[in-house]
Amino acid sequence: MGNKVVLGIDIGGTNIDYGFVNEKGEILERSHYKTNEFNKFEDLVENLYKDVSMQIEKNGFDPAGIGIGAPNGNYYKGTIENAPNLKWKGFVPAVQLFKAKFNVPVFLTNDANAATIGEMLFGGAKGFKDFIYITLGTGVGSGIVVNGQLVYGHDGFAGELGHTIAVENGRQCGCGRKGCLETYSSVTGLRKSVELLKNDFDTSPLFNVPFNNLTGKLIYDAAKSNDRLALKAFDIAAEKLGKVLANAVAVTSPKAIFLFGGLANAKDLIFDQTKKYMEENLLNIFKNKVEIFPSEMKGNEAALKGAAALTWNELTSE
Amino acid sequence: MGNKVVLGIDIGGTNIDYGFVNEKGEILERSHYKTNEFNKFEDLVENLYKDVSMQIEKNGFDPAGIGIGAPNGNYYKGTIENAPNLKWKGFVPAVQLFKAKFNVPVFLTNDANAATIGEMLFGGAKGFKDFIYITLGTGVGSGIVVNGQLVYGHDGFAGELGHTIAVENGRQCGCGRKGCLETYSSVTGLRKSVELLKNDFDTSPLFNVPFNNLTGKLIYDAAKSNDRLALKAFDIAAEKLGKVLANAVAVTSPKAIFLFGGLANAKDLIFDQTKKYMEENLLNIFKNKVEIFPSEMKGNEAALKGAAALTWNELTSE
Repeated sequence: MGNKVVLGIDIGGTNIDYGFVNEKGEILERSHYKTNEFNKFEDLVENLYKDVSMQIEKNGFDPAGIGIGAPNGNYYKGTIENAPNLKWKGFVPAVQLFKAKFNVPVFLTNDANAATIGEMLFGGAKGFKDFIYITLGTGVGSGIVVNGQLVYGHDGFAGELGHTIAVENGRQCGCGRKGCLETYSSVTGLRKSVELLKNDFDTSPLFNVPFNNLTGKLIYDAAKSNDRLALKAFDIAAEKLGKVLANAVAVTSPKAIFLFGGLANAKDLIFDQTKKYMEENLLNIFKNKVEIFPSEMKGNEAALKGAAALTWNELTSE
Repeated sequence: MGNKVVLGIDIGGTNIDYGFVNEKGEILERSHYKTNEFNKFEDLVENLYKDVSMQIEKNGFDPAGIGIGAPNGNYYKGTIENAPNLKWKGFVPAVQLFKAKFNVPVFLTNDANAATIGEMLFGGAKGFKDFIYITLGTGVGSGIVVNGQLVYGHDGFAGELGHTIAVENGRQCGCGRKGCLETYSSVTGLRKSVELLKNDFDTSPLFNVPFNNLTGKLIYDAAKSNDRLALKAFDIAAEKLGKVLANAVAVTSPKAIFLFGGLANAKDLIFDQTKKYMEENLLNIFKNKVEIFPSEMKGNEAALKGAAALTWNELTSE
């Protein structure tokens, strides 16, 4: 019997991260591929098998299972379904392929759900039975935990707070609808706010930045030097997020909300304002009960640990 | 060993219904009090003990427990907390008082949650593990079931879809905020719509009805004879409900939504339109997956059966 580990795999549009994670959530060995190295998903499975077999031997690992986080990952079916940013089209039977090759338990869900379970097992949400986890990156992802269990819904796709309508007939969203939270409270939304509001302000260091070069970091830096345009963009992001969270609290009544990702790193600009707007919009019985915390997971570890946490959670709750 | 039953108690502002319900959901014996008969909650407990003791003896019942549905009922604490329509103020330790007197397991939750469990055990939601239950009456109540369990949230107050904001800066709600779903999609909301839209229409049989006499039934009858004002009021109710449901689906991804109560009885005027507005506002991955059904519980039985179902559910899932 070696060192019990789970192989976590985080599949993204650019990179595939993988690594061995022990039951304490420590990453013992990690590596990555470029996603476009693999024309067929089967090639990924084969390569990974070869590469990790050596690592298992070398380190004396005893792999208890595999956990996969992937865009449009369906927990129930074990498939990656029509993921727009991945080259493998249609339904990829990821769990089935990994199981056949590795002969260990394999679980899969989408990246936000995996990160949510990571936060619950290895991060700030330890011991929380009811919480909401939000990723504020290029888009807005979320995972909902109720009574200690991730909410998958009947089809495995629950937890899409980023695609609840924050503003009726609002900004055009990539999903085809209008006014989704993601169009306001993501880095993309922040950039959009700067673009749309430019004419309302006399001066801003952001005026000289072409839209394509406008990053969350630049807007953050401007806001920190009190640029009113940048501050307004953050205020909009926090307002829409706070209002959507107020409605979400009325549905699942969580004890806490955790924010992760690019925008959440802008701590003071996001947390206080989001909390303020949420409280203003909460039903009385929920006021002053719900904490908003920053995620305790490191940005470059959360996805990988989350993928492994998915499977640790399954193996230890049986 | 007699006939195993649960004593269900539905506490409302006007009446307290109670009755014995067997495991199939059949009401074997029922009766009621006027709520204002009892100055102290203890008096209710004493009276009920006397009255049901006789019924138990007479019918050979074997009471397995007590289930209580009450406004502002807190499942975790077993308390009724500051219920605006009840005369007992502050926190009433209902479960504790009933347990001390009856010496059986006692569970309590709010009326909408109880009705939700009733639908799951004895109604149309049998076998559904993920669904949303909506009561459309004077107000809008809701219960959310995830993975076969009612969502209570960390404080016992989850499932308040009626108090999610449907319209920013919308109609004044009794809760103190503006634009809650309940101000549009309840019987009260329907009446308000008629009142507000009167001037937009040339003629309507509802013009002659003073606001205080305006009932859901009158508006329904007018709509059924193609009165455009009444039809518009129903359309608004369905539109706001459909949009809130579209957002709720993105959170818990239910297999079905059940509608119960006064407005839900206006079947054709509510179901088709609510479904239409919901589908228009759903994220692609949820489209054409979620059914909207009428509750299968009779109006005068749902609350009582729900209260008993709460405890049957606890006793049989242990």
